[in-house]
Order: sequence, then structure tokens, then C-alpha cells
Amino acid sequence: MARLIEELKKLPGVGTKTAQRYAFHVLRSSDEDAGALADAVRGLKQSLRLCSICNNVTDVDPCAYCASPVRNPRLVCVVEEATSIASVERTRNYQGVYHVLHGTLSPLHGVGPDQLRTANLMARVDRNEVDEIILATSPTLEGEATASWLAAALRGRGVKLTRIATGVPAGSDIEYADEVSMARAMEGRREV
Amino acid sequence: MARLIEELKKLPGVGTKTAQRYAFHVLRSSDEDAGALADAVRGLKQSLRLCSICNNVTDVDPCAYCASPVRNPRLVCVVEEATSIASVERTRNYQGVYHVLHGTLSPLHGVGPDQLRTANLMARVDRNEVDEIILATSPTLEGEATASWLAAALRGRGVKLTRIATGVPAGSDIEYADEVSMARAMEGRREV
Repeated sequence: MARLIEELKKLPGVGTKTAQRYAFHVLRSSDEDAGALADAVRGLKQSLRLCSICNNVTDVDPCAYCASPVRNPRLVCVVEEATSIASVERTRNYQGVYHVLHGTLSPLHGVGPDQLRTANLMARVDRNEVDEIILATSPTLEGEATASWLAAALRGRGVKLTRIATGVPAGSDIEYADEVSMARAMEGRREV
Repeated sequence: MARLIEELKKLPGVGTKTAQRYAFHVLRSSDEDAGALADAVRGLKQSLRLCSICNNVTDVDPCAYCASPVRNPRLVCVVEEATSIASVERTRNYQGVYHVLHGTLSPLHGVGPDQLRTANLMARVDRNEVDEIILATSPTLEGEATASWLAAALRGRGVKLTRIATGVPAGSDIEYADEVSMARAMEGRREV
């Protein structure tokens, strides 16, 4: 029991009390349910891998996005983490595929270009399989540095490079916009 | 005393207790200080007017922005309220002038095109005094409607029309971006 509580406490946001509640729930559940949970935990790590094309976390290779017949494989959206794909998918508007870097450049944390998974993206570009790469890393310090570095690395390879727009968020008043977002909104203005 | 408290309670965010504190402060201050406050309140309403060029709230006509010799009078940023000018000025990057609409289109509140102050902007455009108009209304429902209506009204008058960028705010993670801002960030992507 103590061992299970210790393991459960490693989950994000789970403290001793919650871990105890979870452990007691397991204690009260049927052998079948407890076994199913244990199998699911073990199975996740065993079955999940990275998509060989885009590095997305998947249980089939290539992943559902890369294998989709309705998506445009020549339009690639580069994101930091596999979880960022959900943000782009929520727009219900994107018809291309992805490439997951699994990190951002962060010299302070010892993350350099070698730690980012870019080899298969470069290979895709060099095999002339890509028309446009959307650099969709976050508009944070690390995200911007990563986008700049990647843009430099991809330049001259005959692929169109674009960066997602930074600006005032939709639905918010410009009076409450921070000055950097407002400055980007002014710089990034588009003809109507 | 009760009359002053009643008047002070009309200030935004001031309730009875705060109004009493203010009133007692006036009571304790010198005749001079109380007189200066009264004069400042009365003076504000008497001396303030709207700039005849851009409708900004000002005590001199034309306002400081329109009269500035270092600003480009051919680049006009259209904002909803005079207070929105501060948002653009905070970017420390804008070298043009302004036009204040004093409102946004809002059919539900009975605000139509006639209630917006656009006559002097149209006159500026028709006198060929403007190269570019930046539609910097907020990316809210009313702000977008106002920008669209204004764009339609100004089209064909030989002036470049631009709209500020909507997107993921600077410094924030795309994982936390709302779907509309994310969709706008993708649509509004720019070549790097």
C-alpha cells in the first residue's frame, strides 16, 4: 500500500491525501479492474513510440496524421511538443501534417540544436516532400529562438517558411494588451 | 458634506466608505488645496475638447499628436476610444498619428455608423492627406464589425487599409491559446 501511494504521488498535482484516496480506490476495486489499470499503465509505455515521419507520440507508425489520406503532407506545422498538436487541431481549420521537435532551444538548460529532433524533418525537405513549413513554436523566448534557428537551418532548401502570427488575442480589448503583443500586432498588420 | 459624499460616490469604484474618506480629507485640507481640486475638476470640463483633426481628447487644438513635427501625418491609426491611444503609444514604435472613433458599431446598443465620428477622417482621406489607415479597433465582435464597416466605407478612396494582427499573445505558450486566436495565428502566418 505504501509503495503504491509513493508511486501515485509522482503524478502531477497528486499529493499524499489524493494518492491515499486513489490507493484505497484500487484496494476496493475488483481484481479485474486493478489488473486492467496495471496493464494499461504498462501497456502505454510498451506500445507507444514516436512516429518515424513526424515524431508524434503514437501507437501506430506512421501516426494518424501522417497516414491520413485527406491531409496535405506537403504542408508541415512544426510544434514543440506532441501536446501542442491539440492546440492546432482545436482550430478545426488545419489540413496539413505536423513535425514534433520534442523541446525548444534553451542554452540555460543545456538544450542545443542537437537535442531537438530535426533530422527526419530535414530529410523530408531534402527529398522535396514539403512545400511549406509553418514554424508554430510558442511566441516565448525559447520558442522564438527555436523558430529563428530552424528558419536559418531550413533556408535555401527550396521550402516556404512561415511563422504563426503574434498579436492581440481574439476577443480581448486592445486597452489590456501587453506592449509586446500590441507592437507585434502593429508590425504584423495585414492589408484588408 | 453629504452632498460631496453623494457626488464622490459617482466616481468608478468609489463606495460610501471611500467617499467619506475622500470628503474628510477635503475637510482637513487647506482652503487652498480644496479650491485647487474644485478648480481642476471644473477646469477639466471647460478646457478639454476634441481635436478637430483626429477627435482625440485634448486641451489644445490640434492635439499633441496631430501637431507633432516628428510624426508622419500620412499614417493614421484608427482606434475606438482616446484611451486606446495609450496602448499603441506603449509600444514606443508607432510614428504615425491617430483617429478616434469614440465608439464601436453595436446594433444591440443602438450604435450605428452615424454615431461614430468618421466625417473628419473621410475628409482627410478625400483631401489626399493619408497614405495608410491602420484599423486598430479591438479584435472583439464590435471591434471587428467596426473595422469591416470602416474598410468598406474607405475602399476605393486610394488609401492603403491594414488591420492589426490577431494571434497568440507574446510570451504565452500555444498550449494555452484559445482556438480563435490560434486559428488567426495560423491564418495570419507570415513568411520569414
